[in-house]
Amino acid sequence: MSDAAVILLSGGMDSGVLLAWAGQRYGGIHALSFDYGSKHAAKELAMAEALAKAYHARFVKIELPFMDALFSSSLLKSGDAVPDGSYTEVSMVSTVVPFRNGIMLSIAVGYAENLKIDTVLIAAHAGDHPVYPDCRRGFMDAMDQAAMLGTYAGVRVKAPFIDLSKEDIATLGRSLDFDFARTWSCYKGGQIHCGVCATCIERKAALKFDQGLDPTRYRE
Amino acid sequence: MSDAAVILLSGGMDSGVLLAWAGQRYGGIHALSFDYGSKHAAKELAMAEALAKAYHARFVKIELPFMDALFSSSLLKSGDAVPDGSYTEVSMVSTVVPFRNGIMLSIAVGYAENLKIDTVLIAAHAGDHPVYPDCRRGFMDAMDQAAMLGTYAGVRVKAPFIDLSKEDIATLGRSLDFDFARTWSCYKGGQIHCGVCATCIERKAALKFDQGLDPTRYRE
Repeated sequence: MSDAAVILLSGGMDSGVLLAWAGQRYGGIHALSFDYGSKHAAKELAMAEALAKAYHARFVKIELPFMDALFSSSLLKSGDAVPDGSYTEVSMVSTVVPFRNGIMLSIAVGYAENLKIDTVLIAAHAGDHPVYPDCRRGFMDAMDQAAMLGTYAGVRVKAPFIDLSKEDIATLGRSLDFDFARTWSCYKGGQIHCGVCATCIERKAALKFDQGLDPTRYRE
Repeated sequence: MSDAAVILLSGGMDSGVLLAWAGQRYGGIHALSFDYGSKHAAKELAMAEALAKAYHARFVKIELPFMDALFSSSLLKSGDAVPDGSYTEVSMVSTVVPFRNGIMLSIAVGYAENLKIDTVLIAAHAGDHPVYPDCRRGFMDAMDQAAMLGTYAGVRVKAPFIDLSKEDIATLGRSLDFDFARTWSCYKGGQIHCGVCATCIERKAALKFDQGLDPTRYRE
C-alpha cells in the first residue's frame, strides 16, 4: 500500500491549508481539482494548479461537464446570479450544487483505489454552513464507510478539519507559513475577490481583514 | 417531493428488469446511463436508450471521460484484453473499474436531489461476484446513509434485488414479460455476445441457455 494521500483541492483557503498540512504527513500528495462548470472555475483551478506545484503535489484536473448541463445552482455558469450578503439559509441555498462533495469524494476514492492509496482527505470544517448538507460529520462518516467497504484497498475518507472553525484553519495555515494570497474564495467569477458575496465575507472574517491580517485584494 | 425514481440503467439484463419492475411502482422513471469509456459502451448504451424509450422513462446519458483516462481496467478501452472463462478472483479482478458503483450512485443522488426525487435504484444482486466490492450490501447501506445525510431531499439508495440471484432476476423478468433480447451483457465489445467471457457465461446460466430459454445470439 502506498503512503501517499489523495486530497480534494479546490483552490480555496481551506483545501490550501489542508495541502500544506498533508504535505508534512504523507509520502506524496495527489491533488484532485474538479471543473464542474462553476462561474469561478477558471480562477479557482489556476490557483489550485499553482498551489499543487508549489507543494510538489501531483495535480489532476477532472472535468465533470454533466454538472453544469444537468444541475441547477447559482454557482454554475448555467445558473442565476450569486446573491450578495452573508450566509443565510434563504439567500445561499441557491449556491448548493447537489451532492457535490459526494460526487467528488467518490471519484477521489476510485482514483485512490486505482493507485492502491488508502487515504482521501477533504477540508470540510465546522464552519461549513448548515446550508451544505454534504459538509457535515455524519455524511463524512457514511462516505468513509462506503469507501472502506466498496474498495479492495479499504480506502478511508478523512476530514481532519471537521472540528475546526474557518478562523482555526487560518491560524493553522499561518503556523505552516501558508500564503493565503495564493487561494481563491469568491463565487462571483471576477478577476479579483468581490468582497461582498457570502464566501468573501467569511474569508475576510477568518483572515481578520478588519485587523489588517488578510492579504487578499477585494474589489469592495 | 416527486414520486418518481432515478435508476442506474446499464443496458444489461439486471438493470433492464429493474426498469420494468420500477415502472410499475414509481410515478415516472429517470434512467441514467454512463459512458465511462468501456469497450462495450456503444452496444450497451444503445440498448439502454432503446429500453428507456420502450418503458417511457426519461433517458439521461452522462459522460465520464476521466475514467478511461485515469483508471486501469481491462473493461476500459485503454485497458488490456478482457479474459475468457468463468468468474474467478484471479481472472476477473482485471475487469474491476475502481469504485464505479460509488461514482455512478453519487451522481445519481445529485441528479435526484436536483429534481427533488427521493429514490435512487440500483440492480446490484446477490449473484454479483465478490470480485466487485462496490456491489455488496454493506456498501449499499453506507451509500444509502451518505445520500440521506448529504441531501435536503433525504435521498435513499435502494438495491431491491440485493437478495436475488441472477437466475431469480431472470424469473422475475419473465413474470414481467421483459424481453431479454433487448439487453447486453458481453464485456468484449463485439457486434453479438461472444458467449465465452465471464459475463456471457453468467448470462447463459441465468437465462437457462442449456434448456433453450435464452433468446440471446452468441458467437460461440
